[in-house]
Amino acid sequence: MQWKNFDELDTYKKLNSIREVVDIKNEMAGESGAQRVDKYKVNMAADMVYSYAAKNVNDNIIDILQELADEAELIDKYQELYNGAVINTGEKRLVLHHLCRGQLGNDVIADGVNKREFYLLQQKRAGEFAVKVHNGEILNEKGEKFTTVVQIGIGGSDLGPRALYLALENWARVNNTLKMDAKFISNVDPDDASSILATTDLAHTLFIVVSKSGTTLETLTNESFVKNALISNGLDPSKHMLAVTSETSPLANNPAYLDSFYMDDYIGGRYSATSAVGGVVLSLAFGPEVFARILDGAAKADITAKNKNIRENAAMLDALIGVYERNFLGYGVTAVLPYSQALIRFPAHLQQLDMESNGKSVNRFGEEVNYVTGPVIFGEPGTNGQHSFYQLLHQGTDINPIQFVGFKKSQMGNDVIIENTTSQQKLNANVAAQIMAFACGKDDENKNKYFEGNRPSSIIVGDQLNPESLGALLAHFENKVMFQGFVWNLNSFDQEGVQLGKVLAKKVLAKNTEGALTAYSELLGIF
Amino acid sequence: MQWKNFDELDTYKKLNSIREVVDIKNEMAGESGAQRVDKYKVNMAADMVYSYAAKNVNDNIIDILQELADEAELIDKYQELYNGAVINTGEKRLVLHHLCRGQLGNDVIADGVNKREFYLLQQKRAGEFAVKVHNGEILNEKGEKFTTVVQIGIGGSDLGPRALYLALENWARVNNTLKMDAKFISNVDPDDASSILATTDLAHTLFIVVSKSGTTLETLTNESFVKNALISNGLDPSKHMLAVTSETSPLANNPAYLDSFYMDDYIGGRYSATSAVGGVVLSLAFGPEVFARILDGAAKADITAKNKNIRENAAMLDALIGVYERNFLGYGVTAVLPYSQALIRFPAHLQQLDMESNGKSVNRFGEEVNYVTGPVIFGEPGTNGQHSFYQLLHQGTDINPIQFVGFKKSQMGNDVIIENTTSQQKLNANVAAQIMAFACGKDDENKNKYFEGNRPSSIIVGDQLNPESLGALLAHFENKVMFQGFVWNLNSFDQEGVQLGKVLAKKVLAKNTEGALTAYSELLGIF
Repeated sequence: MQWKNFDELDTYKKLNSIREVVDIKNEMAGESGAQRVDKYKVNMAADMVYSYAAKNVNDNIIDILQELADEAELIDKYQELYNGAVINTGEKRLVLHHLCRGQLGNDVIADGVNKREFYLLQQKRAGEFAVKVHNGEILNEKGEKFTTVVQIGIGGSDLGPRALYLALENWARVNNTLKMDAKFISNVDPDDASSILATTDLAHTLFIVVSKSGTTLETLTNESFVKNALISNGLDPSKHMLAVTSETSPLANNPAYLDSFYMDDYIGGRYSATSAVGGVVLSLAFGPEVFARILDGAAKADITAKNKNIRENAAMLDALIGVYERNFLGYGVTAVLPYSQALIRFPAHLQQLDMESNGKSVNRFGEEVNYVTGPVIFGEPGTNGQHSFYQLLHQGTDINPIQFVGFKKSQMGNDVIIENTTSQQKLNANVAAQIMAFACGKDDENKNKYFEGNRPSSIIVGDQLNPESLGALLAHFENKVMFQGFVWNLNSFDQEGVQLGKVLAKKVLAKNTEGALTAYSELLGIF
Repeated sequence: MQWKNFDELDTYKKLNSIREVVDIKNEMAGESGAQRVDKYKVNMAADMVYSYAAKNVNDNIIDILQELADEAELIDKYQELYNGAVINTGEKRLVLHHLCRGQLGNDVIADGVNKREFYLLQQKRAGEFAVKVHNGEILNEKGEKFTTVVQIGIGGSDLGPRALYLALENWARVNNTLKMDAKFISNVDPDDASSILATTDLAHTLFIVVSKSGTTLETLTNESFVKNALISNGLDPSKHMLAVTSETSPLANNPAYLDSFYMDDYIGGRYSATSAVGGVVLSLAFGPEVFARILDGAAKADITAKNKNIRENAAMLDALIGVYERNFLGYGVTAVLPYSQALIRFPAHLQQLDMESNGKSVNRFGEEVNYVTGPVIFGEPGTNGQHSFYQLLHQGTDINPIQFVGFKKSQMGNDVIIENTTSQQKLNANVAAQIMAFACGKDDENKNKYFEGNRPSSIIVGDQLNPESLGALLAHFENKVMFQGFVWNLNSFDQEGVQLGKVLAKKVLAKNTEGALTAYSELLGIF
C-alpha cells in the first residue's frame, strides 16, 4: 500500500484534465430527471438512502471516481486503520473509534490490551453506573435521586455529545426513555458556567468532567467553578462529580470523583462521541439501551463503508464527489442543511469533524501539498435556513454545494393539518423543492427573479431520526471525512493548528508579552 | 447622486491594479506592531472600539478606500435611505429600520403617516402592554400572572430577536430585570413546536405570532399548533396570543388576539429586530427600559455611521476592508467569532443579515454584475471554536478573514481564579493570542507545526455586553452590510432568491409535480 499525494495519482491528472461541469439543470429536467433520481442513489445503514442525482456527476465521472478510490487504495487504508496501524502519523497513534461500535477486522492489541474489550468494558461500566443512578442505587447525600447530568468538556467532548443529546431528546421524551436532562458547559467564558449553575438544581445534578489529558484549561477551570458552587451550596463535590479521562491522567481513579470512565489516545476528541465521552452522558440521559442502539447504527455504517464498489458505499461516494467539487470545480464551502430541528447542533459537530480533520496544508509526512484540502462547513436546520442564508446559495456569485438530510417521519408524532397537509409533509415538500430549485433554477426576464440553477446538492433520507439512524449518520460523516483525508494524503487525526493560540494565551496570562500582543492585552483590559 | 456598478468606479480600477497583499506578519511584529494596534482603531458607539491592525490594510489602501467611499457616495446614499428614498428598488419600498431608534434626518412621511411617530407609537404600546403583564394588570383566565413568552416567527422574526434575547438573558438575570422567560418556535418541522409545547407551562404563557403579511406558511402552521394545544388544555387562545403584523394583514385588529402591534413594509425581516418584531418580545422579557437601551445603543451607532471620514466610521471602514478582501484578494468566507457565550446565536443572525442582503448576482437595476458580492458568513463563540474549526482557519489551504468580538467584563460577574487568573482573563487572553497567531504565525522546521500567518482579522472590543453595546453591535453590522451593498450596487433589501423554493414546495403539496420533483417527493415519503 502506498501513501501518495493526490496530485501524483493518474486519476488526479485525468480528473484535472476533464474538470467536467455537468449540466445538472438539463439532466434533472423532465422524465429523465426522475430516472436519474432513481438511478443515482445508494442504500445506507439504518434504512437510509444517499441520493446524489443533483450532484455534479455522470456515469463517466463516477467511473473515474471509482478508479480514484482504487488507485488511492481507500478501502485498504480503511482496513489498515481499523486493524490498528499507526494512521495518526504526527502523534504516532492508532485510530480506533470504529472499535467502539464493532470488530471490523483483526483484534487490535495495544499497550498490552485488547482495545475492543477495553472500549466494551467502559460501555458496560457506564451503562451499569447509569442504571444504578436511574433505579436509585446511587443517590445524592440526602438519599434523593439525581435528575440532571451536566457534561463539562470542550471541542470533541462537547460538540458531538451535545449534538447527539439534542438529536434524541424529544425522541426519548415521547418514547419514555428520557431518564435525565442533560446540559453542557464548555466555554472558558465565566458566563457559560455561571448561567448553567444559576438555572440548575445542583443538589440533584451529576457533573461529568471530560478531558483526556486531565489538563484542558477550559475544562479544569469550569470544574473548579462547579466545585465552588457545590461547596457553597453545602454539597460534597465527590458525591456529584464523575470523570471521563485517560487512565494515566490526574483525574483517573481519584477519590474526588464518584467514579471514572476511561478513554485513550487512540480516539481523537472529534471522533469520540461513540466512546465513553458520549457514552457516559448519553447512557445517563437516555439509558444504556439507547446508547447501544446508536452504536449499532454506527457499526452498520462502518461495515457499509468497507465496500470497494463506490456505487454501494455512500460514505466513499459522498467523499469523492466532495473531492471532485473541491479540487476540480473550485468550490470552497459545503452547507449541511438537515430538515430536522432536532439536528440543530449536528452541523456544528460536523464543522469540527471536517474542518479540524482536513483543514490542513501538509500531507501525512509533513510536506506541503499543492492542492486545496478541506472546505469550510456551515449549516442550520431547514426550513429555518430558507428564510435566512438560502438567498446567497440560490443567487449569490459563488457556488456552494449542499448536503441535505431529511426524514420521512417526525420524532414526536404530534402534527397539525393546515391546507390539507401536515407540517411534516410541508417540511419535506420544502426540501424536495429546494433540491430542484438549486438544480434547475428558473428562467425569468426579470434578472432579479432569475435562478441560474446548476447548484449541486445531495440528500440523505432516513425513515425517522432515532438512535440507529443517528448513529449511522454520525459514522457516515466520520467515514466520509476519513476517505477525503486519505485522498488528500492528510493526517486527519491530529490538530497542530490549535497549538499556537494556546501557547500565546499562556504568555498573555503570564504577562510575558511584547509589542502587539501587549497592545491587544491592554485593549481587552486583561490586567 | 449616481448608482454605478462597482467596476465602473475609478477606485475599483485603482484597487484592482494594486491588489496589494500587506505583509501583516511583518507589520505586526515587534514594537511597530504595538504602534500599529494603537493607530489602526476607531471609536464606536457605546464605548466600543473597532481594531483593524491585523487586517490587510496600510495607509495607502485606507486612503484609496476613503476615495472609494467618496466616489461611491456612500454617506449620501445612507442619507437618501434614512430620509425616505425608495432604496429597495425591487419591491419599490423605503428602508426605514433606522427610524425605529432615532431621527437621523428629515421627517419621513409615507402613506400619510410620520413613520418615526408610527414606530415610536408601537414601542410605546408594546412597553405599556409589557408593564401591564409584569404588574398583573393583564392576567390569564384564572387571574394568574404570565411567566413565559413564546415568539412564533421565522427568519428575521426569529433569528434577530432570539439572538438579542440570548445575548441579554443572563445579564438581565443578574440585574434583576428578567421579567419573563422567552422561547421561540420557528421551524415548520412539527417537532419544533411539539418540543416547546411539551416543556412549557401553557396556562402562564403568552404567544406572539409574528408575520408581516400574516401569510407566512411556517408561522401560521405553528400558530395552529399552539392554538390546538391551548384549546386541548382548556385554555382560550384569544387570552394567550398576540400578533405582530402589518396593519393590513388578516392578523391585525383581530379578536383572536389579546392585542396587535404593527410593523410595515419599510423594514425587512432581517432588519426588524429593533422594530415591534423584537420590541414586543424583548419588552415582555426584559421590560421596556432595557429595550429602550438597546435602541439607544443602535441610534448612537447609526449616528457614527454618518461620518464621511472612513477612519472615524467603523461600519464604513469594516465594510470597505471586507470589500477589499472579497473583490481583490479573493476571500469568499468571513468567520464571525464572538468571545462571549451570550452571543451564541449572534452569528446566525449575522448570517441572515449579510447573506440574504448581499448574496446576489444582479445590481439594483436587475442587471448582472461582473464581480463577486457577499461572502459566506459563519461563526461560533470562542473559546469553543478554538477546539473545533480553528484548525482550518490557521492551517487550511484557503484564507478566511475573521471578525472577532470581545468584552472586558463578563455579564454575570461570577468568576473563579485558577493559576492566578480569572476565567474572563483567560477568555480575553485567548482572543488576543488568536489575533496574533493568525497575523504572525510561527516558523517551525516541522511543517506540521508551521503557521504561515498573514491571516487577517479585526476585533470589536466593548466594556461589557449590555443593552447599549448590544444595540450598537447590531446596528454596526446592519450599517456595514448596507455600505457593502451600496459599493456592490445591490438592492440589499429584497430577497427574490427565496421565492422559487416556496413555489415548488406548493406544487409538491398540491401533488402538481412531474419528473425529478415527483421522484424526490416519493423518496421523502411525502404522500
